[in-house]
Amino acid sequence: MSRFGKREEGIEVLIQEAVTMALESCGTKGIDMLYLGTVNPEEFVGTSNFAAYVTDILGLTPTPAVRLETAMSSGGTVFQQGFLAVKSGLHKNVLVVGAEKMTDLNTAAAARILAKVIAPSERIYGATMPALGAMVTRIYMHEYGMTREAMAQVAVKNHHNASLNPYAHFQKELDLKTAMEGKIISDPLTIYDCAPISDGACAAVLTSDGGDGDVDVAGIGQATDTFSILEREELTSYKATRLAAKKAYEMSSFNRKDIDVAELHDAFTSFEIINSEDVGFFGRGEGWKAVTDGRTQLNGDIPVNTSGGHKARGHPIGASGLAQIVELFWQLRGEAGKRQIDGAKTAMAQNIGGFCQNNIVTILKVR
Amino acid sequence: MSRFGKREEGIEVLIQEAVTMALESCGTKGIDMLYLGTVNPEEFVGTSNFAAYVTDILGLTPTPAVRLETAMSSGGTVFQQGFLAVKSGLHKNVLVVGAEKMTDLNTAAAARILAKVIAPSERIYGATMPALGAMVTRIYMHEYGMTREAMAQVAVKNHHNASLNPYAHFQKELDLKTAMEGKIISDPLTIYDCAPISDGACAAVLTSDGGDGDVDVAGIGQATDTFSILEREELTSYKATRLAAKKAYEMSSFNRKDIDVAELHDAFTSFEIINSEDVGFFGRGEGWKAVTDGRTQLNGDIPVNTSGGHKARGHPIGASGLAQIVELFWQLRGEAGKRQIDGAKTAMAQNIGGFCQNNIVTILKVR
Repeated sequence: MSRFGKREEGIEVLIQEAVTMALESCGTKGIDMLYLGTVNPEEFVGTSNFAAYVTDILGLTPTPAVRLETAMSSGGTVFQQGFLAVKSGLHKNVLVVGAEKMTDLNTAAAARILAKVIAPSERIYGATMPALGAMVTRIYMHEYGMTREAMAQVAVKNHHNASLNPYAHFQKELDLKTAMEGKIISDPLTIYDCAPISDGACAAVLTSDGGDGDVDVAGIGQATDTFSILEREELTSYKATRLAAKKAYEMSSFNRKDIDVAELHDAFTSFEIINSEDVGFFGRGEGWKAVTDGRTQLNGDIPVNTSGGHKARGHPIGASGLAQIVELFWQLRGEAGKRQIDGAKTAMAQNIGGFCQNNIVTILKVR
Repeated sequence: MSRFGKREEGIEVLIQEAVTMALESCGTKGIDMLYLGTVNPEEFVGTSNFAAYVTDILGLTPTPAVRLETAMSSGGTVFQQGFLAVKSGLHKNVLVVGAEKMTDLNTAAAARILAKVIAPSERIYGATMPALGAMVTRIYMHEYGMTREAMAQVAVKNHHNASLNPYAHFQKELDLKTAMEGKIISDPLTIYDCAPISDGACAAVLTSDGGDGDVDVAGIGQATDTFSILEREELTSYKATRLAAKKAYEMSSFNRKDIDVAELHDAFTSFEIINSEDVGFFGRGEGWKAVTDGRTQLNGDIPVNTSGGHKARGHPIGASGLAQIVELFWQLRGEAGKRQIDGAKTAMAQNIGGFCQNNIVTILKVR
């Protein structure tokens, strides 16, 4: 993966950094298919037909290439579709790339683009992602007694992990006092509860020709939910995550207790907590206590977002889901440096598209 | 498929029309995956995360859904990826949808969006799709002696076919004199040489559970080419089409003489001619003579664009490639009404993405 952050270079450079690292890491020759996950290059960087464009800048034409998009879960989707392509027998070595260059626009312009993932019937009232996230967070606090401190502790944990990750957007610690006193974005969410707008790219190679030391895809799951959140039965748990996790668990034959390390979609600190319940790590309403008990830290019984998560590793929306996979790949190979979870053998990535309208869960294991 | 044209209804209605027809046609129950091909709903209709949106308006949540895009070949791509998904064994009944609603914007605004598929290095000089198409057409005329009349005859043929197609954008005949005297768009291309801006949606179901009377996917091929046309070895033949066709022929074990009916990407009349050479129907520089000899008409030895083609059936860019497949499906089932090619057993669709940067060839056969 490229270093995430506010990058001065163009998206082309970020993609080249990630792909070069992926190809050198695996030594695979003869890529025969490319999938690109990117949410909105048309508006963020002004070019369409982006799969062909990327194939060309990588010097990989005439390799077939397809761009995929499921909003913020595009990075998870591109990995799962790469797996499908290998499984079909029609492709042998598939390169998957996730990328987004978001900081060429200012925050207001980026926010207007991001809001297009929200149902038109709710967007017309001014709903933005942080506004909806704040509403859900309020309800969760009311229902389960979550403290502001628990949310701040997610940010502190993820910043700590990111400080050990040379590819992270934020590579510095955050102290609890600062995290508790952040500027309000949408009450109760402060700037420290929200993932940043980032630039970045990731790449991975899926192959039918793996060997010792490779990582296997154990299970995949995906599910959609109503586009309008008004139509949902509940707001502090997401059916699309629960169903995707169920499918991934079933395919893998693992259960929640088998997972050694996880990357969960922490666009907001409170969402890491909700997601940790939806994938079954903790009971409903128990996720925030697990954080205050330190169970999701690097030395906890189920470390979450060892990369720093979207919150601190960064959130270039087309790349984020694949960044989760890259982190877990490093963890399963024992290559995660100072944030390594010893003996990690099974790992889960959970990735949200839009406001939990299209979610993805992937389980990996050491071969 | 929905009726193509300038439709007053929203894209949601067009998609519902197409999907209802597809599901009623095949009787398949239990769709377990949805692929949506659409080029730019973010800018054409203002909503992103469109695969989840479409899944919801179809009442199909929590079915997994992925949006695919390869510019104007998105409709062909969505069909090929649906085939891959079934072939993987991970999905049984896959619904593929192609859709675009383009006429909510005026022609100038739509043209600005469409130009984003062109290389930035060429777009900055004002290159538009018709401008590049006109340049290629001039070169082809110069190299091979093609007459303006041959191009007009493509338009006349395709309008005739569309007049027999109740789903076509233009359902009226065009006479040669009118076709020869059209308003210039980009010399030598007139309004009658260019496909219209259309609204429309198409749908198909791919299944591992087919039976008698179904249509089989015999071969698929896809290839990319340099994003900038400046870097190409030649301009009057497209490598991405030739390679995609080669792959599709090889997989199918058919050769060019086995194809009974074809849909070729006639965004410009001259491109139908170039494509007919690139897929091997005619020798280089011979395609225009095949038109003047009537060989590609309904009663010719290789009927091309029986639907009316993009030129007259219409060209809603995310749907067009799938509209080709739908027409060929009807032809192979003997359901093409007054434009039926008797005894058609093998059929080819050829679909261009951008300025021949990402092309798709699909071969179908009767089971």
